[in-house]
Amino acid sequence: MTKALSNPHLPFGDQRSAPWYGKSILTVKQFSQDDLKYIFGVAHEMREMVERVGTFDLLKGKILVNLFYEPSTRTSASFTAAMERLGGSVIPINEVKYSSVAKGESLPDTIRSLECYSDVIVLRHPEVGASALAAQYARKPIINAGDGIGEHPTQALLDLFTIIEEKGNVDGLTITMLGDLKNGRTVHSLSRLLSLYDVKLNFVSPEILRLPGEIISELEDKGIPVQEYALLDKAISESDVLYVTRVQKERFEDPQDYENVKGTYIINSQSLASAREDLILMHPLPRVGEISMELDDDPRAAYFRQMEYGMYVRMALLAMVLGKA
Amino acid sequence: MTKALSNPHLPFGDQRSAPWYGKSILTVKQFSQDDLKYIFGVAHEMREMVERVGTFDLLKGKILVNLFYEPSTRTSASFTAAMERLGGSVIPINEVKYSSVAKGESLPDTIRSLECYSDVIVLRHPEVGASALAAQYARKPIINAGDGIGEHPTQALLDLFTIIEEKGNVDGLTITMLGDLKNGRTVHSLSRLLSLYDVKLNFVSPEILRLPGEIISELEDKGIPVQEYALLDKAISESDVLYVTRVQKERFEDPQDYENVKGTYIINSQSLASAREDLILMHPLPRVGEISMELDDDPRAAYFRQMEYGMYVRMALLAMVLGKA
Amino acid sequence: MTKALSNPHLPFGDQRSAPWYGKSILTVKQFSQDDLKYIFGVAHEMREMVERVGTFDLLKGKILVNLFYEPSTRTSASFTAAMERLGGSVIPINEVKYSSVAKGESLPDTIRSLECYSDVIVLRHPEVGASALAAQYARKPIINAGDGIGEHPTQALLDLFTIIEEKGNVDGLTITMLGDLKNGRTVHSLSRLLSLYDVKLNFVSPEILRLPGEIISELEDKGIPVQEYALLDKAISESDVLYVTRVQKERFEDPQDYENVKGTYIINSQSLASAREDLILMHPLPRVGEISMELDDDPRAAYFRQMEYGMYVRMALLAMVLGKA
Repeated sequence: MTKALSNPHLPFGDQRSAPWYGKSILTVKQFSQDDLKYIFGVAHEMREMVERVGTFDLLKGKILVNLFYEPSTRTSASFTAAMERLGGSVIPINEVKYSSVAKGESLPDTIRSLECYSDVIVLRHPEVGASALAAQYARKPIINAGDGIGEHPTQALLDLFTIIEEKGNVDGLTITMLGDLKNGRTVHSLSRLLSLYDVKLNFVSPEILRLPGEIISELEDKGIPVQEYALLDKAISESDVLYVTRVQKERFEDPQDYENVKGTYIINSQSLASAREDLILMHPLPRVGEISMELDDDPRAAYFRQMEYGMYVRMALLAMVLGKA
Repeated sequence: MTKALSNPHLPFGDQRSAPWYGKSILTVKQFSQDDLKYIFGVAHEMREMVERVGTFDLLKGKILVNLFYEPSTRTSASFTAAMERLGGSVIPINEVKYSSVAKGESLPDTIRSLECYSDVIVLRHPEVGASALAAQYARKPIINAGDGIGEHPTQALLDLFTIIEEKGNVDGLTITMLGDLKNGRTVHSLSRLLSLYDVKLNFVSPEILRLPGEIISELEDKGIPVQEYALLDKAISESDVLYVTRVQKERFEDPQDYENVKGTYIINSQSLASAREDLILMHPLPRVGEISMELDDDPRAAYFRQMEYGMYVRMALLAMVLGKA
Repeated sequence: MTKALSNPHLPFGDQRSAPWYGKSILTVKQFSQDDLKYIFGVAHEMREMVERVGTFDLLKGKILVNLFYEPSTRTSASFTAAMERLGGSVIPINEVKYSSVAKGESLPDTIRSLECYSDVIVLRHPEVGASALAAQYARKPIINAGDGIGEHPTQALLDLFTIIEEKGNVDGLTITMLGDLKNGRTVHSLSRLLSLYDVKLNFVSPEILRLPGEIISELEDKGIPVQEYALLDKAISESDVLYVTRVQKERFEDPQDYENVKGTYIINSQSLASAREDLILMHPLPRVGEISMELDDDPRAAYFRQMEYGMYVRMALLAMVLGKA
């Protein structure tokens, strides 16, 4: 795998024969377990290279268009850092509201224009299916950086890569997800990816924010043991991973209902009293109080490390679709 | 010509002796036919270099300030890509409304400050003459990327370069321009450039959006055969190039007048029924319906390729004013 | 000093042994006179390198996050140019209002996320103490690019570096500051830095905009001769440096008071009639009329050169905190 990187000297091999050359990254549904193994193998090599040399010239001369139809500082910065650490360049396009799009240009036209300047396009768009539409018209690979309430596949990949790098493997783990599981796009995508492995999944949420029934069914059809809880205390002690998401007040019709449950969904030292010592605590960030800052220096707190793993995953995907890994 | 590029090894020759070293690009009126030949020769070499190696280090260590007082995603991205493909760096300044300018700073002060950091400044500004004013104060070359209803010389150059690259030459061609010819800055500039060659020009527009009389006179004074039409069908069969621009509803006092003519100015397969097989169909983009998407995969549709030619022209101009071509 | 740079060949020595490696730049109060000598020595070498080769690869592979919670085109562009001239890359984050921060994320969380992608963070923030707070949580160095009415240490350093480069030294100089000395952050910081040297300071301002008493006391405690004036004419002839800042109309309760004094604080050829021929005229920019454009081509006008000195100072600081100088 990733023969290209194992040789410290250039050249990096024939790019057209690389398995992901020219492909778009649109949905977690496109990945087999073998694909994930490949991606995470490359991402791990990226991590080692960054730790050893900081940046390197694998994508020197390649240009990424970072096309964000809605702001997402963290995702945009992560892709920029990934491209720059690989020696490539970035054309940032962040203000689409002021631009050609405001003049009524269609997404396919924008994509077909911008691909003239670039080798790969990262697309964030408020509408479900935007990346798939873009990929249909583009000659260059598209990487979906979030399409509304649709998917954000690189987030799901980085969540899973974090688990792998921190725990050494996925099989055999008990993973507990907590918070707004009804609306949480990251929880849905990560659950689907995890269903490719031999895991046990716990879901802890207020009654009105439970994981959608169709996802529960999907997981059970694949033989994944699933347990739902209203409180964390019954699930915490057996958890290898606790993945926290935010419960937004606005989701509740009656503010009192929110007041009644919110304490359950704020994680602090007390919440982890019966947790394993090798638990890892994850969060997609940004957080707004749902994990107490008192945990930030706890070695189990993996949420800032998660950001860094995200950069390695994005480096891997960029290198792959450009035929360099 | 462009001796610098013919040698694959550095150095690229003495920059101060390069003919365009330090010059500003402000208006199409500054170019003789020899100048255009030179520019397009360098642009063609840029195209060949990009096709062969993607990017190269001709402008390594040079810094471009991309100063946009109004948004223009496409132009900004094109200059950024041009500079990055030449190995140079870009300082993007897109939000001038929030910046020093909002504090009342004059354009000359802004230019004299920013030139301290950079080697060349690309300027987009809503006021006619802004680039000329900037060039008057600047020690570094200014490239006009559009000054209101004034000029956008790199657009005109890329339009002409598209014709040359697609058709092999300009002399002897019949070029038909269609749409809002009264207000279309691109049509005015391109017509002026074409008047340096041996061409025939057709202009197809609604009565109220005809090409201004003074431009017609200018063209006729140079001996260019000019014909005006209200409908495309009389001009299409003899055309080598059809250059389409948008007819905006807001230009018409009576909405019914717009409804009466709009069908004429939407180009589809039917419109091209009697066109030559080697016609090329151009558009400055963005389009909003004035060319049907059914033509996008027709080999005659050159409007996306036009974007790419634009990058080569901008690479050429950057290399030239920085003394590298 | 700066052994690293004195050798034209890489490597640049052991970065962890560099005296400023990993340190944050937060306030002018952190610098001793020896520190300033070191910084300005490196900045001078940066100037020589830029004049000789334009850019070089001292920070190749390093990534700067330029995190601006409020716009400052000039400062942002200066840091970007500094990093790019050193061969490093920049992740610009300019629109914090639209981003995670708008979702309620705390500054420490933003910093701890972004440092995962980068080697150094430049921070501009509207709140006093923001950079110190950021540095408390960050593992990577923070450079304060302005924290509200707090400090803007790199501005003060570039002001002082301008004096040193233009005048050859600081000791023995008479420096006159004029304008709004009450609210002028740059004047306060520069005065504090100057108090480390053997200088005489004159302060010229309207009565209601005099330098705060505690700063006067601070300066006098250090043995600096200080003189306050309401008019420039008594101070100009002995001045080696005239540092001009803006008097804003809004500072005055009675508009008539502003009208009465404003003429005094607009510098033109007449104002400099009795000035020394080797005076240098400085301004932090942007200016809005407080120095007449008729002086722009006077060799004494140092305010545009000031911008360029700023880039060298920022190059020096970036190289230092990244262990390369």
